[in-house]
Amino acid sequence: MALPPAPGGLSILPVPGLPEIAPGDDLAGLIIEACLAGPGLEADDVVVVSQKVVSKAEGRLVTVDPDDPLAHKPLVLAESARVIRRRGELIISETKHGFVCANAGIDRSNVAPDIACLLPEDSDRSARRIRDAIFGRTDTRVAVIVADTFGRPWRRGLTDVAIGSAGIKPILDLRGTRDAVGRELAVTEVCLVDELAGAAELVRGKATGVAVAVIRGGPDEWFGEGSVVEEIVRHPAEDLFR
Amino acid sequence: MALPPAPGGLSILPVPGLPEIAPGDDLAGLIIEACLAGPGLEADDVVVVSQKVVSKAEGRLVTVDPDDPLAHKPLVLAESARVIRRRGELIISETKHGFVCANAGIDRSNVAPDIACLLPEDSDRSARRIRDAIFGRTDTRVAVIVADTFGRPWRRGLTDVAIGSAGIKPILDLRGTRDAVGRELAVTEVCLVDELAGAAELVRGKATGVAVAVIRGGPDEWFGEGSVVEEIVRHPAEDLFR
Repeated sequence: MALPPAPGGLSILPVPGLPEIAPGDDLAGLIIEACLAGPGLEADDVVVVSQKVVSKAEGRLVTVDPDDPLAHKPLVLAESARVIRRRGELIISETKHGFVCANAGIDRSNVAPDIACLLPEDSDRSARRIRDAIFGRTDTRVAVIVADTFGRPWRRGLTDVAIGSAGIKPILDLRGTRDAVGRELAVTEVCLVDELAGAAELVRGKATGVAVAVIRGGPDEWFGEGSVVEEIVRHPAEDLFR
Repeated sequence: MALPPAPGGLSILPVPGLPEIAPGDDLAGLIIEACLAGPGLEADDVVVVSQKVVSKAEGRLVTVDPDDPLAHKPLVLAESARVIRRRGELIISETKHGFVCANAGIDRSNVAPDIACLLPEDSDRSARRIRDAIFGRTDTRVAVIVADTFGRPWRRGLTDVAIGSAGIKPILDLRGTRDAVGRELAVTEVCLVDELAGAAELVRGKATGVAVAVIRGGPDEWFGEGSVVEEIVRHPAEDLFR
C-alpha cells in the first residue's frame, strides 16, 4: 500500500483508523497501531498529529454551556498572554506559548457540544513525548509535529502550521548558502515544520477525522533537535505587527 | 521512477532539468520536456512553478547597479501600491496585486548580479498560460500554481505561497460541512493553493535550481477555476493588520 517516494520526492500518507481519543489515552500507542495498519512506520518518517487529539489525550478539555456559542470566550482571555486585535466576537491574541491566533487556539469542533478544547500546555513537550514513546516501543526514530490550523493576515483561508515538534529542525537555515549563480541567498530561513504541517493537512482534511499523516522521504538535513516555541515564535521586538 | 501515491496519499515529485530561463523562452514547453524526462505529466497533476522562472520568461527583469546591494529599492516603491511597514532597509508593502510581502516581491537571487527580478504582472494569467499551453500540447489537464517565498508576522522562517493559479480551487470552502461529531466546522476555508505551494517547496529547495515540482494524487474536489488574486488576497476592509 505505501510505496517509497521517487528519488528526491516525498510521500504524504494519511493514517486512518485512530479511534476517538479521551483524556489519559495512550496516544502514542494508538498512533503506532494506526500507522502499522496503514502506511507503516519507517526511520525518518515525519509523523504529523493534529492538535485536537493531542489536547484530548492530555485532558485539555473544559466543560462549557452547550447552548451558548460564545461560552468559550472567557477561556480565550484566560489562555491569552495578551489580546492583539479584537473585532466583534473575533479575538486575535497571543497565547502563553507566544502563538498569535484566533481565540487562543480554543475551538469546539470535533468535540462534544459541551466541551471546549484548549491547546496543549507545552506543545513541543507533547511532540517529544510521542516521538520518545514511538522510539521506545518500535525502535524507529521518527520526527513528530503537532499541527493546528491558523489564519493569517492579508491572505484569506487557513493553513496548518506546527505548534510543537521533536526530532526535526523547525527552520532550515540556509545562511551562507549560494544560489545557482553563486550569489548569497536572500531567503535564508525556510520554516520547514510549517510547510510539513500544511502538506499533511492536504491528506487529513477537516471533516474526515484523519488526525495523523506520515511524510516519507525527507532528506537527512531535516532531522535534528529544535523547538517550535523557541525557534518559530518571533520575538515581539523583531515583529513589526504586534 | 514516479510511483502512484498510496490510496488517499500524495506524491510530491521534484522536476529537475529545467535550463536557465531567459526572456521570451517557451517556459511551458520547457516544463513539459522536464516533466516528461522526470516524473511524467498526468491528468490532475498540480504543477507548481517558481515565480522566478515565470518572471524571467516574461522578461520582468530590470538592470541595476551590481555593486549597490540597495539598487533595487526604488523599484520596490514603484512596484508597491502602498508601504505597510518600514524598518531600516526592510520594506513590507502591498503590491499592485494586493500581496503583502517584503520588497514587493523583488529579489536578486538566482539572477545575474546586475539584475533585479520583479513579480509577474498578472500572476494568475501566468499560471493560466502555462496550464493552457500544457493542455494544448499534451492533451493533459493539469493545474498550475505559481509560487513565491514570503515571510509572515509572528512566526520566524519563510514559506512558499501561491501568487497565481489555474485549474485548481484556491480555497476549499467547507462551510456547512459537519465534523466527525456532527457539529458544523469552525474552520471553513482551507487555503489549498498555499498548502500545495509550501509542499512543493519541500522538494524544490532554494539553492538546487529545481524550479518545478509535481503534486500527484489530489482528489477531484480540488480542481476547478479560481484566482489567487481574487480569492486569497484579503480585502483591506476585512483585514485587521493593514
